Amino acid sequence: MADGLPHKESMQEYPKPLAKLITELQKLPTIGQKTAQRLAFFMLKLPDTETAQIADAIAQVKQQLSYCDVCGTITDTNPCYICTSPRRNQRIICVVEESDDLWAIERTNGYTGLYHVLGGVLSPLDGTGPDELGINRLFQRIKDSTINDEPVQEVILATNWTTEGQATALYLTQHLETFEINVTRIAYGIPVGGDLEYIDEVTLAKALEGRRKA
Amino acid sequence: MADGLPHKESMQEYPKPLAKLITELQKLPTIGQKTAQRLAFFMLKLPDTETAQIADAIAQVKQQLSYCDVCGTITDTNPCYICTSPRRNQRIICVVEESDDLWAIERTNGYTGLYHVLGGVLSPLDGTGPDELGINRLFQRIKDSTINDEPVQEVILATNWTTEGQATALYLTQHLETFEINVTRIAYGIPVGGDLEYIDEVTLAKALEGRRKA
Repeated sequence: MADGLPHKESMQEYPKPLAKLITELQKLPTIGQKTAQRLAFFMLKLPDTETAQIADAIAQVKQQLSYCDVCGTITDTNPCYICTSPRRNQRIICVVEESDDLWAIERTNGYTGLYHVLGGVLSPLDGTGPDELGINRLFQRIKDSTINDEPVQEVILATNWTTEGQATALYLTQHLETFEINVTRIAYGIPVGGDLEYIDEVTLAKALEGRRKA
Repeated sequence: MADGLPHKESMQEYPKPLAKLITELQKLPTIGQKTAQRLAFFMLKLPDTETAQIADAIAQVKQQLSYCDVCGTITDTNPCYICTSPRRNQRIICVVEESDDLWAIERTNGYTGLYHVLGGVLSPLDGTGPDELGINRLFQRIKDSTINDEPVQEVILATNWTTEGQATALYLTQHLETFEINVTRIAYGIPVGGDLEYIDEVTLAKALEGRRKA
């Protein structure tokens, strides 16, 4: 600080805690320097309790959440509320890439079955194989269900329409052939290359309705 | 939860800590529901240490900062590094509305004087008078400086070009007439109705250069 030289200013004119906050906020997507500054200045003017609430919510989101042992979604109870719900149709499992895809489908209010969340897609180059994605756990779920009253009758593949998403769906289709179940692929209305999470509810509901045999 | 009715879903499909984070993030400016979701999902995937750093930065920004007793800016040392700097010209004081205006001027690298941060503008309807803005403290600073070797020779009024900003500048001009100093108003290049904080460095530096007697 007191180096005797006229110091070069960039973030240096901000008090340190503020500069740190601005730097931290810029780690987030959609937030560049100007937005980070604006958010930081806004937080400076918020009452202490409000900033504490925001900080707590961020700190606790990771601590209080885990993955559902059954379906693999992010949840605060284990198994999750969908897997334990008596109102869900146990005979249908919808396979999605991520928990946010599950939540996107839940928002359509048009699906009452169960889910299986892969937590990614097959990607040999990144070292993501069937084991990492809990695909064997899916096969086991289907096998176990045949012992119960309600065997799984249909698996809906709702991975994204990307190269990896399609490859993953194909892999699942091939390996699910050994089971006596319908394997369908979510279809109509999803723009090619689109991300499931950002599609409107109506289109997504349509895609579920119009599913076809894989 | 187990109310027996098919529950209406909106945020309810999210695990509670995640729903809470999304709600908290939406309190911030420029962040709507979609952006809040995107930020929250991103944080879920960050390593724990990263989310902890963001949370800490938010929690600490209010705790570690206070107002400079001399100029009123937000600072982590008191008095602030500008007020205590031996390299600053003690004979010029630039009056700004908020600390972020001060930082905007600092970024121009074209100003070496001191500042006085009002923390707002005169607004009789909101009950913001000269006392709330530390205007008397400014007058006292100028009086005190005449006892020292370096009496204040110029006060630059750099309030925003809004009705209240102009009214505040006018009030200051009238009351500073009793002192034997130049009172100037920041001028060229600031768009009428514009907010100082978001103006580019060059324009802002021009406005400082081209200041005229108020």
